Amino acid sequence: MTDTYRLMSHKGADIYIKRDDLIPFSFGGNKVRIVERAMRDMAEKGCDAVIGYGSRTSNLNRVLAHMAAHRGIPCTIIMKEDKAPGMPMNERFVRESGASVVMCRPDSIRTGVEQEMSRLRELGRRPYYIYGSSLGTGNETVLMDAYRDAYEEICAYEEREGIHFTHIFLASGTGMTQAGLLAGSALKGDGRQITGISVARTRERGTEVIGSALRAYLSERGFDGSLPEIIFRDEYVGEGYGAGNRELSELCRHMLSAYGLPLDPIYTGKAFLGMLKEIERKGIDTPVLFLHTGGLPGVFDAAYGDMLS
Amino acid sequence: MTDTYRLMSHKGADIYIKRDDLIPFSFGGNKVRIVERAMRDMAEKGCDAVIGYGSRTSNLNRVLAHMAAHRGIPCTIIMKEDKAPGMPMNERFVRESGASVVMCRPDSIRTGVEQEMSRLRELGRRPYYIYGSSLGTGNETVLMDAYRDAYEEICAYEEREGIHFTHIFLASGTGMTQAGLLAGSALKGDGRQITGISVARTRERGTEVIGSALRAYLSERGFDGSLPEIIFRDEYVGEGYGAGNRELSELCRHMLSAYGLPLDPIYTGKAFLGMLKEIERKGIDTPVLFLHTGGLPGVFDAAYGDMLS
Repeated sequence: MTDTYRLMSHKGADIYIKRDDLIPFSFGGNKVRIVERAMRDMAEKGCDAVIGYGSRTSNLNRVLAHMAAHRGIPCTIIMKEDKAPGMPMNERFVRESGASVVMCRPDSIRTGVEQEMSRLRELGRRPYYIYGSSLGTGNETVLMDAYRDAYEEICAYEEREGIHFTHIFLASGTGMTQAGLLAGSALKGDGRQITGISVARTRERGTEVIGSALRAYLSERGFDGSLPEIIFRDEYVGEGYGAGNRELSELCRHMLSAYGLPLDPIYTGKAFLGMLKEIERKGIDTPVLFLHTGGLPGVFDAAYGDMLS
Repeated sequence: MTDTYRLMSHKGADIYIKRDDLIPFSFGGNKVRIVERAMRDMAEKGCDAVIGYGSRTSNLNRVLAHMAAHRGIPCTIIMKEDKAPGMPMNERFVRESGASVVMCRPDSIRTGVEQEMSRLRELGRRPYYIYGSSLGTGNETVLMDAYRDAYEEICAYEEREGIHFTHIFLASGTGMTQAGLLAGSALKGDGRQITGISVARTRERGTEVIGSALRAYLSERGFDGSLPEIIFRDEYVGEGYGAGNRELSELCRHMLSAYGLPLDPIYTGKAFLGMLKEIERKGIDTPVLFLHTGGLPGVFDAAYGDMLS
C-alpha cells in the first residue's frame, strides 16, 4: 500500500495521486509489483532463471535485474538496440546488477529470446521469460494480477476517506497495468473510467492488446458481465516513445518545483499532461486519481540530457 | 510515518531500515521534516521570506526551494562556492525552482546572509534565516523537533512489532537530526545508543555542536535527567565531505543491486558503511535501525560522475 493524497486542483477537478513510485525497492514504480507477480509465477512453475526484455530506458529491466540479484536468480536482459547517445540510467543499473545483457536489433528480439532460452537450457537451467512465449505473449494475465491488487487498494482508500474517483489516469505502455486496473473495475462492476495515456502505441494497437488480455483474464475467472470501456489516448505521445517537447519538459519542471513531484518526460510526464488536457477537454469537475507509475531514473536522464545539450 | 522494515543481517545483527528517503515531497529525506518545522516557526514569527544556506550538493537547499515555491514564499539560497566541475543535481533543482541563488565564498557566508536579510527588509519583507542568526546558530532547537517526532515513530514501530533496536545509526552532518533523536531518547530515558556517522566534521566539533543543541533543547523543556551519550564517529569521512572512495562506491552499487536500496556516496553511503564497521568492531548481535535520511539526487550525481570520468 503506497501513499495516496490530494495533490492539487485543476479546472474544478480535485487531483489525487497514488505514489507507486515510492514502493521501497529499486526506485519503486509499477514494475516492482509486476515483477513480484512474475517471480511468484516463476517459482510456482519450478523455473530457476529469468529473462526480461525492454528498451535501454526500460524500468522493467532495472527492477527485474535488481530483484533477480536480490533473490540470487540468474537473469538475462534482452535489450533493444537504439542509436540514442549516452547511457540511460536504467541501462547502467542493469549492467551494474550482474545481469547478462544481450543487445538485440528491434527486428530480432524473438530470435534473441529463443537463443537465450536454449543457452540456459543447455546449462541445465529452467528459464522463464517474463512475457511468456518468445513472441512476447501469454503471460499477460499473470502480470495483470499486480494491478488488480492495486485496484483493491484504491477502493479501500476511497472507502476509508469517503471519496469516489470518477476517473483514474495513468501512463500506458504495454498496457498490463491498465488492463489490471480494468479487470479490478470489471469484477467490482463499478463502471469508472480508467484512462491510459499512451507513451508509444497507437490507440488501435493499445486498445487491442489491452482488450485481448482483459477478456482472457476475466474469462479465466468466469466473468460474464459486460466489458468496461477501454480508453487509451494516443494524442499525447508527441514524437513517440522517449521523445519529449518543450511543453512536457516545462510541466515536469513545474510539478517538481511547485509540488515536489518528480515526473519524467518518457512516461509519467506524458500521462500527467494528458490527464490535465483530458480534464479540460471533458470538463471533469469531480475527484480523479493519477497513478504515479514510477520511472525515477528517467527524471535524472532528462536533467542530464538538458545539461549536455 | 515512513516505511520501516527488516533489510538484511550482518554478522549477527539484524538491520532494519526506516525509509525517510521516501517521504513524498521533493525526493524525500530528513530535510523535508526539518524544513516543514522551520516553515511552521517562520509563520508563527510572522515572517514572509526565507533564506537557506548550504553547499551546491545540499539536500536542504533543494527541499527548502521546493517547499517555498509550493507555498508561494520568496526564497533565497546562499550557496557555498566550490571548484567542483559540473552542476550537482541539487544545485540544478534549486536554480530551476525560481529561488534566488547567491553564490558565496566559504569565508563570506555571514556577510552573504546579512546582505540578503537587508535587501529583503528594504523590499518590505520580513526574512527568516533557517539557521537563526547570520552566524548560523540559534534555530537548533526548532529544527530538532522534527526528529524528536520521528523518534516517537520509531518507538511506535517497536511497540507494534515487539522489537527493540539497541542502536540507531544515521548520517550526521550539521547534527540536528541526530540531536533530535537524542532529545527523544533522553526524554524517554531509554538509554539506547544513537550513533551519528560524520559526513564531514571532526568528532570534537560534531560532539560539541550536538551537545550544545541538546542541552538547550532539554533545558527549555525542564529536563533534569542525565544527558545521553553523544556518539559521533568521524573515521568514515574519508577524504572529507563529498569525497568518495572505491570501497564506498562498491558498497553503494551492491546495496542498490542486491537490496534495491539507493545510497549516495556523500551522506547515506558513508553512514551505511560506518554502521557495518561499527557492527563488526563492537560485535553487535541485536536488532539495529538504520535511518535513511535521503539524498537521492546524489545517487545520480555519483552515477554520472563515474560515467564522465
